[in-house]
Amino acid sequence: QMPRGNLETINPRALILSAVRKYLDRQVTIVLEFSLAMSVMRKHRINMNLLYDHNPEMFLQNVDKFVKQINNVNFINLFLTDLQQEDVTRTMYTAAYNRPIVSTEHGEDTKNKIDQICDAVRHSLINFNKNKFILSILTTYVKKSTPELEAALLLVRSLRDNPSSDHIISPQEALKYLLFLVDVNEMFDVALGTYDFDLVLMVAEKSQKDPKEYIPFLNHLRRLEGPYQKYTIDKHLKRYKKALESISQCGEHFQECLTLVVDHKLYTDALDLFSPSSSQYKEVAKHYGDYLTERRKHEEAGIMYIGAEKWELAIDSFLASGNWQQVLCMAARLKYGKDNMANLSRKLAGQLRDNKRFCEASVVLEQYANDTEEAVVCLIDGGQWNEALRLMYKYQRTDFIETNLKSALVDSYDQHMETLQSMEEEFTKHKRRLTVVRVEAEKAKLEFEESGGYRNEADADLFSDTSSADGESVQSSQYSSNTRQSSVFSKSTGRSSKNRRKAEHKKWKLKEGSKYEDFALIAAMSKTITNAENMRGEISSLLQALVQFHYRKEARSLQRLFERFLSQIEKSIPEIWTDEGDSVSQPMTFGPGVTANTIAQAVQGGQKLATQEKLDPIIKNPPVLKKEIKWKLQVLEISDA
Amino acid sequence: QMPRGNLETINPRALILSAVRKYLDRQVTIVLEFSLAMSVMRKHRINMNLLYDHNPEMFLQNVDKFVKQINNVNFINLFLTDLQQEDVTRTMYTAAYNRPIVSTEHGEDTKNKIDQICDAVRHSLINFNKNKFILSILTTYVKKSTPELEAALLLVRSLRDNPSSDHIISPQEALKYLLFLVDVNEMFDVALGTYDFDLVLMVAEKSQKDPKEYIPFLNHLRRLEGPYQKYTIDKHLKRYKKALESISQCGEHFQECLTLVVDHKLYTDALDLFSPSSSQYKEVAKHYGDYLTERRKHEEAGIMYIGAEKWELAIDSFLASGNWQQVLCMAARLKYGKDNMANLSRKLAGQLRDNKRFCEASVVLEQYANDTEEAVVCLIDGGQWNEALRLMYKYQRTDFIETNLKSALVDSYDQHMETLQSMEEEFTKHKRRLTVVRVEAEKAKLEFEESGGYRNEADADLFSDTSSADGESVQSSQYSSNTRQSSVFSKSTGRSSKNRRKAEHKKWKLKEGSKYEDFALIAAMSKTITNAENMRGEISSLLQALVQFHYRKEARSLQRLFERFLSQIEKSIPEIWTDEGDSVSQPMTFGPGVTANTIAQAVQGGQKLATQEKLDPIIKNPPVLKKEIKWKLQVLEISDA
Repeated sequence: QMPRGNLETINPRALILSAVRKYLDRQVTIVLEFSLAMSVMRKHRINMNLLYDHNPEMFLQNVDKFVKQINNVNFINLFLTDLQQEDVTRTMYTAAYNRPIVSTEHGEDTKNKIDQICDAVRHSLINFNKNKFILSILTTYVKKSTPELEAALLLVRSLRDNPSSDHIISPQEALKYLLFLVDVNEMFDVALGTYDFDLVLMVAEKSQKDPKEYIPFLNHLRRLEGPYQKYTIDKHLKRYKKALESISQCGEHFQECLTLVVDHKLYTDALDLFSPSSSQYKEVAKHYGDYLTERRKHEEAGIMYIGAEKWELAIDSFLASGNWQQVLCMAARLKYGKDNMANLSRKLAGQLRDNKRFCEASVVLEQYANDTEEAVVCLIDGGQWNEALRLMYKYQRTDFIETNLKSALVDSYDQHMETLQSMEEEFTKHKRRLTVVRVEAEKAKLEFEESGGYRNEADADLFSDTSSADGESVQSSQYSSNTRQSSVFSKSTGRSSKNRRKAEHKKWKLKEGSKYEDFALIAAMSKTITNAENMRGEISSLLQALVQFHYRKEARSLQRLFERFLSQIEKSIPEIWTDEGDSVSQPMTFGPGVTANTIAQAVQGGQKLATQEKLDPIIKNPPVLKKEIKWKLQVLEISDA
Repeated sequence: QMPRGNLETINPRALILSAVRKYLDRQVTIVLEFSLAMSVMRKHRINMNLLYDHNPEMFLQNVDKFVKQINNVNFINLFLTDLQQEDVTRTMYTAAYNRPIVSTEHGEDTKNKIDQICDAVRHSLINFNKNKFILSILTTYVKKSTPELEAALLLVRSLRDNPSSDHIISPQEALKYLLFLVDVNEMFDVALGTYDFDLVLMVAEKSQKDPKEYIPFLNHLRRLEGPYQKYTIDKHLKRYKKALESISQCGEHFQECLTLVVDHKLYTDALDLFSPSSSQYKEVAKHYGDYLTERRKHEEAGIMYIGAEKWELAIDSFLASGNWQQVLCMAARLKYGKDNMANLSRKLAGQLRDNKRFCEASVVLEQYANDTEEAVVCLIDGGQWNEALRLMYKYQRTDFIETNLKSALVDSYDQHMETLQSMEEEFTKHKRRLTVVRVEAEKAKLEFEESGGYRNEADADLFSDTSSADGESVQSSQYSSNTRQSSVFSKSTGRSSKNRRKAEHKKWKLKEGSKYEDFALIAAMSKTITNAENMRGEISSLLQALVQFHYRKEARSLQRLFERFLSQIEKSIPEIWTDEGDSVSQPMTFGPGVTANTIAQAVQGGQKLATQEKLDPIIKNPPVLKKEIKWKLQVLEISDA
């Protein structure tokens, strides 16, 4: 027989863990040996989190058993203070458990681990023996991810307020323990937040604070009445929303309330607190309107000024946001006289015209400035032929047909012909150049390959001025969030978004031989196509008007030119957006005759262009053709009889 | 020395071609030996096209030399009649020339080959010796792709009309030769088409026709005067456009003219022939209007009825096409009284309302039916809050705010909440199901691969209910031409195009387990996204109206719900449209460690889905998010102070 030695006291970690696991798993056989597990763990300094992590569900279902078995304030506190968010079976003890590592991406469960345990343990402790476990209960409040200090403090106060012989812990002892866990200054503020001055004093006495400082402060507060006292405290504690709630109840302190709202931008909270008919609501709304105006949110500022019944200010806001209908409503509210109304409506109409909102401008001119002639002229200038005719007939002013409409029709025809011709020229030029650029790139690539070159990503730059291997991303993202400010109803958003896109594509230069010339060409053609597609409506109505007034020849050439251009676009789309990246469209076949080399070459064929750039929607997808808009007139077609 | 044998008479084709080529190339050394070349070619029956095809440019530049060198009517005729569109250097004699085969796609040059040669040779012949080469000249006319028979016949007539001693060929001989090349009946019609009865008789005499038949016919024609004679001839020859031109000059025969126009649908031609102020123009326009109405082209019919001054008919057409402004113009032309106008405008407004064109309906009600109340109600029903308010203030009827507007706002809020909730539910359901379908397909694929299966296109059906290998194409094509008829201005085009798309996607069934379930799910989500994006505008104006009338709570929940849904959509887009087909985004690297097998597998990974289906724009591209439309109100956000 071997002599006994100190071998006996060596406890390999693996064996201990196995024992702990066994204890914790006894649950299946009715008995759960939390207490045995814990004593082994304490002895061998196993991380306490294992009690939960071993089987979280089991633990949460058996918190009551856990509390009863441990039944020791210190041990429970030990467990609670040891809690960590991490799952030790996947970190510290991963070897023993060999559990898969869960991606922390959707780890909302682990996020709440500590909170869940604290809440569950506290619940059990209160049911089991509240008085005995006061300190543990306090620990569960403090340990939470957002410590519930006020609840902890209120528990201490309840000990003080309800003296009972059952209390094992005195309020002072409890407070002392709490201040051991939490900074006393923080606790002072929490106490102050309960508006309970006795509690504040209790905390203050335990602190290093100079009574000469806090006593006068507290006395000052004590002298204030009701909600104003609460407001002052909350403001001191920087709890502005709570402060606002209190001050909003003190009618006589409204100026202070307003200052609070403005200083801390609590406008929406304040609006929720006052009745819309009250003067306070109106005052807040007025200030909110001012604030929104500063931030150039004119539409919303206007709505706020309506709430504030500041009609003049509302007019300015709605003028700025382009909400012409509300401008006129406000003017009516102000009972504008004839002259005032005429001035305002001329200004408004001018603004609408500048934004190409001709129909709306003409409504303003006709109905508010009582200027039929200007209204008709405005519609003619804007190419709103049908609406112009309606107004002429309504006011029996068909003389405008000869004096204005016909020459405007011919002018519009000339302009459209010119625009379309130059668009077509540019498009053809770009398309031709794209072919050249692509052929050159292909040639350079072939030459490189024939020279025995071996391709990889890093080389990509060498054999094609159309490729790019750097990570710099200049493409616009269709789905990136847009932080630019723009008014909701402004029709100019279309234009501004175009500008934005343009800015983003600036890095692709059309200059011959520039790095991204092919992308620049595609982007330019994409824009031209979109512009042409957007012309369907206006060209359609121009054609109809031309035919109605017997400009058949002009209508016919315009129709032919536009048709030719649209069909050129349609024919070009598969050539520009070649889908070459989609290896799917050309299924590759594999067989005995195919070598690794041929496959590799075939795959690389699709890799010609820079990867990042190619994912830009403008490069990836052609613009949508608006085929559903029928613009062509049959009456202009030549019969083929 | 070898004895002479018949070896000398063996002329291998290759050697001969080489000789011909040499002769034809002597041009460089000033002399062009067309005549030598031709004699060799005739002797050895080389295709005559080679004279041109050998070097087309050289031939066309040296046609004069060619003509002078050959200088033989028969040889030139031989060359001309032998002409074919094909390029013999690329077909018959490809071995000798070894020229690359040009794709015939852009082969506009070869199309005109015969015409080019005929025109060039004729030009040279006329300059060189017109009289000698009359028969060759006739051949160049007949040989053209569209034979110029009338020109040929006029040449014969000029021989007859200008008798000269220089003529080597008599008109009779020339005509005989022509009739040898062209069918005599066809030539009879061509002669008739020159309106020259002597020429007709000349041709007729050479024909098998019975003089008892054609003499009375010609005599009948002779008796008719001027344009009516031409009309009768052209109508007989089915040259209806020419017939129309002649008959349009015979005022007394206008009924016959109109019949011709209607029978042969020559409306646009007829309109071009008459002055718009003439009664004939109006008559034609009226009939064209009727024709267009039959074809359901109401807008254009209306324009025609305007030209015809048929205002009542124009009203019906414009009512049918939804051009409300023109309806009102026509009513003004007809000087409608108050009652008539009220009836018409109510009908019109009802129609506009049915098409959700509420603003336009309200204009009609306000300005033509003089019914302010109906106009306001219409705007409120249509959710046009600002316009409704404008009208109320204009007519001092703000009582509508309490009686109608507020309850309509709340109703609209309820409806939008309900719609958005059910859209969100459906979207979530579809997205969840898509994940399941994709996982199942992936699993089936892996199982198949693990079982040692070898994949190819034909097998694709076996291991994935989401793949398809049949060629049946059910996808909508963004670029396919649309033959459906729809009026140009109807706002309902949006809806009808939606219906069309829906019909095209019918074959993808949402039923669980159906063949294209994944595509059906993607299509359904695409539609939901588009619908949600289209709601930005109306929700924005609803939110503003709700805030203005102090429904802050409602506005806030609507804003939150819509925001949540939109952000869910944005987050989901990269999950639904995964871009997995774009092998470009994951560049493949090749190296010594890579085998043919691994590459093949990687490539096949991208082939999971059916190829044709995947190219459908709905499956390929997510809908465009309208981020440029700012709908959110800052005044509803809670401050985070």
